[in-house]
This record gives sequence, C-alpha cells and structure tokens, in this order.
Amino acid sequence: MITKTEIVSKIGEVIRELRLERNLSQEEFADQCSIHRTYLGCIERGEKVVTINTLKKITDALGLTLTQFFKITESHK
Amino acid sequence: MITKTEIVSKIGEVIRELRLERNLSQEEFADQCSIHRTYLGCIERGEKVVTINTLKKITDALGLTLTQFFKITESHK
Repeated sequence: MITKTEIVSKIGEVIRELRLERNLSQEEFADQCSIHRTYLGCIERGEKVVTINTLKKITDALGLTLTQFFKITESHK
Repeated sequence: MITKTEIVSKIGEVIRELRLERNLSQEEFADQCSIHRTYLGCIERGEKVVTINTLKKITDALGLTLTQFFKITESHK
C-alpha cells in the first residue's frame, strides 16, 4: 500500500518519457541506473515512492541534475 | 543501515538551514510538514534517505517548489 501522490505519478511518467526519448528499454535503462528492471517498472507506473538516492541514480543516468529533472516534472501536464 | 550519500547529507543540511532562517524549531516545522519531529531530525542529520513524498511535504511547508529546493541544494557547499 503506497501513497500514490500526484508527484509520484508524474515522476514515473517523466522518467518513462525521458527513457523512451533515449530509445532505451526498461532493462537497458535499469542497468545504467544500477537498479532492478522490475523496480524501474514500478517507479514508472507510480507504484513505488522513490527515495532520493534512487532518483539521483536515475537522473545521473539521464544526464540531468535533480534541478533539471524537477523543472521538467513540475511543468509536466 | 543507510547509504549516506552526498545528496542525502546535503538535503539534510539545506532543510535545517531553511528551517532556521524561518526561526522554526524542529517541533514547529515538523508539525507544519505533518511528519514526526524525530524523523525530521534524522533527515536533517542525513540519517534517513528521504522519499519524494516526504520531501514534497517539506518543500511545501517551506513554500518552495522541488525545482527551487534542488537549485539551492545543488549549489550548496
């Protein structure tokens, strides 16, 4: 049972979109982030409340700072 | 046992600084964030890896967006 807040859903959607823009499968991208593919899937679907350490791994793999990532996320519809 | 990464430590330091700028005790600020005072203490000392839901409560209470918060955090020495 997680608290599926708006921010959790948005973060998941934005991660998925940025991954797809880079033409990466969940498996390839999860490897780059050093997280498990099924865990990445949960995050993308907003089923897991991501910690800041995991999000930092993801934004590093995307080549973005956390500031850049949240700028995209907070302006995301 | 947590992974005390640089980002976790920095986030804690920045939260503490922003709270003190507002002249709030841990107890007062924790109440405003709807989190427990001892949990806030752990976050400020970098002893807890904060989730994005908790961080959102904290930045809301500070009157900052996540983007603004990370801009401060990532430029913090």
